[in-house]
Amino acid sequence: MTRPLIISAFVMNTASHILQGLWRQPEGRQIEFNSLDLWVDLAVDLEKHLFDMIFFADVAGLYEEFEGTHRVHIETGLQIPSNDPSVILSALAYNTEHLGLAFTSNILQEHPFNFARKVSTLDHASQGRIAWNIVTNLQRNGARNFGQELTEHDARYAWAHEYVDVAYKLWEGSWDEGAILRDRESGIHADFEKVHAINHKGERYEVEGPHLVAPSPQRTPVLFQAGSSDAGRSFAAAHAEAQFLGAPTPELAASSIGSVRDLLLQNGRRPEDLKFIQGLSFVIGSTEEEAVRKSRELDDAIDHRAMLAHLTGAMGVDPGRHAPDEPLSEWKIEGVQSLLEGIRAATGSREPTIRDLILLTSRSGRVAGTPEQIADELERWQAAGIDGINLINATIPGTYLEFGEHVMPVLRDRGLAKKAYTPGTLRQKIFGRDRLPHTHPAAAYRNAFR
Amino acid sequence: MTRPLIISAFVMNTASHILQGLWRQPEGRQIEFNSLDLWVDLAVDLEKHLFDMIFFADVAGLYEEFEGTHRVHIETGLQIPSNDPSVILSALAYNTEHLGLAFTSNILQEHPFNFARKVSTLDHASQGRIAWNIVTNLQRNGARNFGQELTEHDARYAWAHEYVDVAYKLWEGSWDEGAILRDRESGIHADFEKVHAINHKGERYEVEGPHLVAPSPQRTPVLFQAGSSDAGRSFAAAHAEAQFLGAPTPELAASSIGSVRDLLLQNGRRPEDLKFIQGLSFVIGSTEEEAVRKSRELDDAIDHRAMLAHLTGAMGVDPGRHAPDEPLSEWKIEGVQSLLEGIRAATGSREPTIRDLILLTSRSGRVAGTPEQIADELERWQAAGIDGINLINATIPGTYLEFGEHVMPVLRDRGLAKKAYTPGTLRQKIFGRDRLPHTHPAAAYRNAFR
Repeated sequence: MTRPLIISAFVMNTASHILQGLWRQPEGRQIEFNSLDLWVDLAVDLEKHLFDMIFFADVAGLYEEFEGTHRVHIETGLQIPSNDPSVILSALAYNTEHLGLAFTSNILQEHPFNFARKVSTLDHASQGRIAWNIVTNLQRNGARNFGQELTEHDARYAWAHEYVDVAYKLWEGSWDEGAILRDRESGIHADFEKVHAINHKGERYEVEGPHLVAPSPQRTPVLFQAGSSDAGRSFAAAHAEAQFLGAPTPELAASSIGSVRDLLLQNGRRPEDLKFIQGLSFVIGSTEEEAVRKSRELDDAIDHRAMLAHLTGAMGVDPGRHAPDEPLSEWKIEGVQSLLEGIRAATGSREPTIRDLILLTSRSGRVAGTPEQIADELERWQAAGIDGINLINATIPGTYLEFGEHVMPVLRDRGLAKKAYTPGTLRQKIFGRDRLPHTHPAAAYRNAFR
Repeated sequence: MTRPLIISAFVMNTASHILQGLWRQPEGRQIEFNSLDLWVDLAVDLEKHLFDMIFFADVAGLYEEFEGTHRVHIETGLQIPSNDPSVILSALAYNTEHLGLAFTSNILQEHPFNFARKVSTLDHASQGRIAWNIVTNLQRNGARNFGQELTEHDARYAWAHEYVDVAYKLWEGSWDEGAILRDRESGIHADFEKVHAINHKGERYEVEGPHLVAPSPQRTPVLFQAGSSDAGRSFAAAHAEAQFLGAPTPELAASSIGSVRDLLLQNGRRPEDLKFIQGLSFVIGSTEEEAVRKSRELDDAIDHRAMLAHLTGAMGVDPGRHAPDEPLSEWKIEGVQSLLEGIRAATGSREPTIRDLILLTSRSGRVAGTPEQIADELERWQAAGIDGINLINATIPGTYLEFGEHVMPVLRDRGLAKKAYTPGTLRQKIFGRDRLPHTHPAAAYRNAFR
């Protein structure tokens, strides 16, 4: 039994996001990223094709150096320049009606009082279509842009727990239901008894409140998270409503989903409280041969050096100082061991090298085939427990138009994509309710400050 | 010789901004402030009437208590709820072509690295129409929302000097001219040699850089400032391109302008580097009698208690504990002494009381008359040295439509308002250039990090 997948467009307000080098494609508009037109046009196209969301990645600085410098990052546009995704969302909201507007914000970037206010403003402006991808900072340069050194991994998640806690108090607890009266007759705009300070005092933050913004349609935005470490999975199980996966195969996705779901239940949350969204890219052909040929052309167009700089830079290492044939198992670096698992599945018994890493990274999550074959593959992902996909682009808007025109109709025929938007907020569309369920930790702050 | 005034609409993303109580007016749309439609519709109307800017005020928390509580603030919507103005600007930018988009941001609210990035993103998105009103925090509650106690007045300005310094380095110095190549042929997106870390190390901030956003049309947004204290005037003379005044009379405006202009010259800046913008509200009648009658109706509609709570709350005092007939000179409070000057001008020799303060505050900057009389009055303000006006509203959009339809044509006839928009950025429109002049301190960071 198939059911409609959540279908999201994975983008970034930058020159080169995931498939490095493709900004050079003559038909691509990615390098117009400074212009609102690019993003509004894309959002309108996505809504026409019934995408559920546009999802913006983000960074707080540069990834780790490559060959001892940031030259490759700057020259290839590897997520630099990188514009603030949050401030363009209102233009997208104004020009669409249903599309979910998800953006990444690093807890390093903004004080939670100001962040919560920004999100509530956007949730009002979009009539309840905002989602927040909660990330912690993994960049040394990112930390130094904010006057800090890189926080140790587990401590970053402790920080994130407090950060969301402050935000939950503001979103869920500061204003009771019915606080806004707008009574022109009596002159009472809001009920004083229903607006509360939160008086948060924690390790890192002290926040008096009240929240400056009245409750928005969703109060708390839909919460996304992407970490795959133990601490990341614990965090997702505690807080996220959707987790992004970059699993190499459906089998590995199933295993990851199983372990997070166990943690979810231990947290008193229900299986349906957390969705899993897999990052995938597609090469679509009218025949299998055409798809294979286009996939090879894509291999040739991708900037593999920039791909490697991105991958290893995100792990905090400089691979430029290693030989391509060096076995990856030699790297004594956090993050590499979990990567190896996926790479070994592809290389078989042979010990994976840096060269393997480069090739596999550029092909990771790539599905090449006819629309029917792609639908078959998505059925396999769904059977493995995936609830949706985050669609990585080769070109903007090309990738999304092609998927919308050629693959979406097949998915719809098979019940793998919805036939129309459900009315209401993003959470209503995904979960059938506007607000977080009582099983979510944020719900504890409802009426808590009265 | 008249010249066109800069004409700005002074608004706030809140229930009740300056003329308290008027959200109750049946035709007013202010209480729809959560909706993008209100603001986009207004921006489009303003552009139709050739306004130069829409200008958003902002706060970081509640003003000081009144009668020992925030009840009056919440009940009358006195700048609470208060939504983030910055995140709605892209919707306004998308729907207009010429209107300047000015917003207030408190240095308390955001780290300068993130703030500079947000502004650059918006300046790209609006094709160079962003202005920033630099404010320091004067609210105890605002400070406590960010885990701080209120910073002493002069120390706040020292903080502001460092804050803008960081922002200038990112905006002006981090990316050289010509850094962006976007060369699809060679695959070089940006010239590595032209992108620089800033390595700021100061009292409060350490920021490595580079700036994450490539140079926007204006680089540094047009800089506004509103402080009237000695430290505030010094800051304006050092940094601002436009200063807001709330002078009670043209004569007092002229005196204030003279003293700031002296400081300006001492800073090596030129008279034309700083514009002065006076906050005014208008009651327009087809006859003088009608205007007088409408002005009295306005007196009756205004919530004077909320007006007083706003005024004194902004000074950090609770006037509810003082009797209405108490002489104001008894108040030993920072800010009151400069207010007294204006009030004495109105009350004559009699010692002003709290009651005088209430009445005068609600009428401060109000000009009532026929369009011709209003134009006469604006000529007097211009003769006193005012370069523009920030138009306080009674209702949105009513006030601006009425001014646009009835007063603007008269101003145009007299050369007090422009007849068409000049093409280009906001700075181009106001100063005839896209970038800050070499006399501005930010200019020192050009090519400083090479």
